[in-house]
Amino acid sequence: MEIITDIASLRTRLKRESSIALVPTMGNLHQGHLSLVQLAQQHAGCTVVSIFVNRLQFAPHEDFDRYPRTQTTDCHLLEQLGVEIVFLPDEKELYPVPQEFQLLLPAVADTLEGQFRPGFFRGVAIIVLKLFNIVQPHIAIFGKKDYQQLHLMQKMGQQLNLPIEIMAGETVRAEDGLALSSRNSYLSESQRQQASHLFRTLFHVKQKIEQGDHNLRLLEERAKCELAKQGWKVDYIALQQRKTLLPANTSDTDLVILGAGWLGQTRLIDNLEIALTL
Amino acid sequence: MEIITDIASLRTRLKRESSIALVPTMGNLHQGHLSLVQLAQQHAGCTVVSIFVNRLQFAPHEDFDRYPRTQTTDCHLLEQLGVEIVFLPDEKELYPVPQEFQLLLPAVADTLEGQFRPGFFRGVAIIVLKLFNIVQPHIAIFGKKDYQQLHLMQKMGQQLNLPIEIMAGETVRAEDGLALSSRNSYLSESQRQQASHLFRTLFHVKQKIEQGDHNLRLLEERAKCELAKQGWKVDYIALQQRKTLLPANTSDTDLVILGAGWLGQTRLIDNLEIALTL
Repeated sequence: MEIITDIASLRTRLKRESSIALVPTMGNLHQGHLSLVQLAQQHAGCTVVSIFVNRLQFAPHEDFDRYPRTQTTDCHLLEQLGVEIVFLPDEKELYPVPQEFQLLLPAVADTLEGQFRPGFFRGVAIIVLKLFNIVQPHIAIFGKKDYQQLHLMQKMGQQLNLPIEIMAGETVRAEDGLALSSRNSYLSESQRQQASHLFRTLFHVKQKIEQGDHNLRLLEERAKCELAKQGWKVDYIALQQRKTLLPANTSDTDLVILGAGWLGQTRLIDNLEIALTL
Repeated sequence: MEIITDIASLRTRLKRESSIALVPTMGNLHQGHLSLVQLAQQHAGCTVVSIFVNRLQFAPHEDFDRYPRTQTTDCHLLEQLGVEIVFLPDEKELYPVPQEFQLLLPAVADTLEGQFRPGFFRGVAIIVLKLFNIVQPHIAIFGKKDYQQLHLMQKMGQQLNLPIEIMAGETVRAEDGLALSSRNSYLSESQRQQASHLFRTLFHVKQKIEQGDHNLRLLEERAKCELAKQGWKVDYIALQQRKTLLPANTSDTDLVILGAGWLGQTRLIDNLEIALTL
């Protein structure tokens, strides 16, 4: 496995590859990331995993400084999987000057995560576009765990005519249902117990809908109350159309329920796809 | 020469090319465009000329509807030059849905042309980015005639890490100095006589500076008065640093003087590079 830190060397190295998959990450890799890497390996001859904690997608009060950085372990894990290339640039390599060119995003980027993390998707979009232009992959993999991010990256691909297939990887969960996330490491032991209630609550709504309860707004409200009872400070619980991420109604069949909330100082998100049978 | 109107066919056709140059145009080709095409042909095995009148770079009150469309003649001229491919998409092909992903540009995009044509560079940037992603050229050619556009496209290339060399082509002029432009066709016979005063005025400033007159702001003001006397409604005359397009001062050596103004309903622009000897 090659660890490459500069853009010029990466471009030279990639010239001889005819089929490249990119898995963009912020490192601190867990089984969720590794499953995305394995998906990439099934679809390309050369898999590039980028590791870069992107300051532009963190608000000033967010956890940029304490975000876990575990590059040695990360590289070890990727080598064991047989990854060809890790791209590990520093900030000067990707942002040698202030990033004045940015992306204006569709209105859906101001909802859900975007409402509670202003600027987050703008930061994600610009780093992903830069990485796409640097790596020029044929396929890029994003996890369904960050469902709205995946949605926006697919839309970006279409609207900017990117010659890249955006592929979705399934969420990997702990035994109790908690979606794997680097931020889970912030949780105390008791918070870790509470944490699975996000998944359980979303799953309960999914079951209700699939059993024929179509009072979507009421189901959202009850889920919020349920989570609050379990000690969560809820940002949102929202039943949306899978295709647009706009609020769903009972004439829609392909839904997704998305949730976000806080346990102490730690913010977690999760989602589940739901088939609404009319 | 192949005339291709859809993205999928163009991508398939270009797969077999190892060196591609793109010349993006709005058609109504004149010798200025053709010199850019010839520059492209010197640097790539396959030259793609795109012709697309991009509604997004016209303000509602501007000349989108009356912009000259001469595709048959254009294609004939390009065929005579030995161009390999003309990309001639319609609006539905490039904007099948409203363009929600747009670019946020550096502050310099709000000056000069950007001050008098709000939204112009945003429209240019998004169509160029889309064309880049569709054609995936190794080189793209922009004329110095649109100096600020060239500047922004070079900056976009750097800041988005585009794998594309942005190359500049010289302005082509009529015998009396008027820069060739599709909009020259709007001019009446008497306006055509007045039109060369833009070049003459800029050239006069260039001479003054090269002869040692370094009162840059005063030179700008006098040039504006001179043009107004010749029947022009002046938008701006500005002596800028070539590298940043910010206002120049006498400690700068690489300058450019840019001018824009109206003859009746027709808006023309021009510029000249100037070496200031300290």
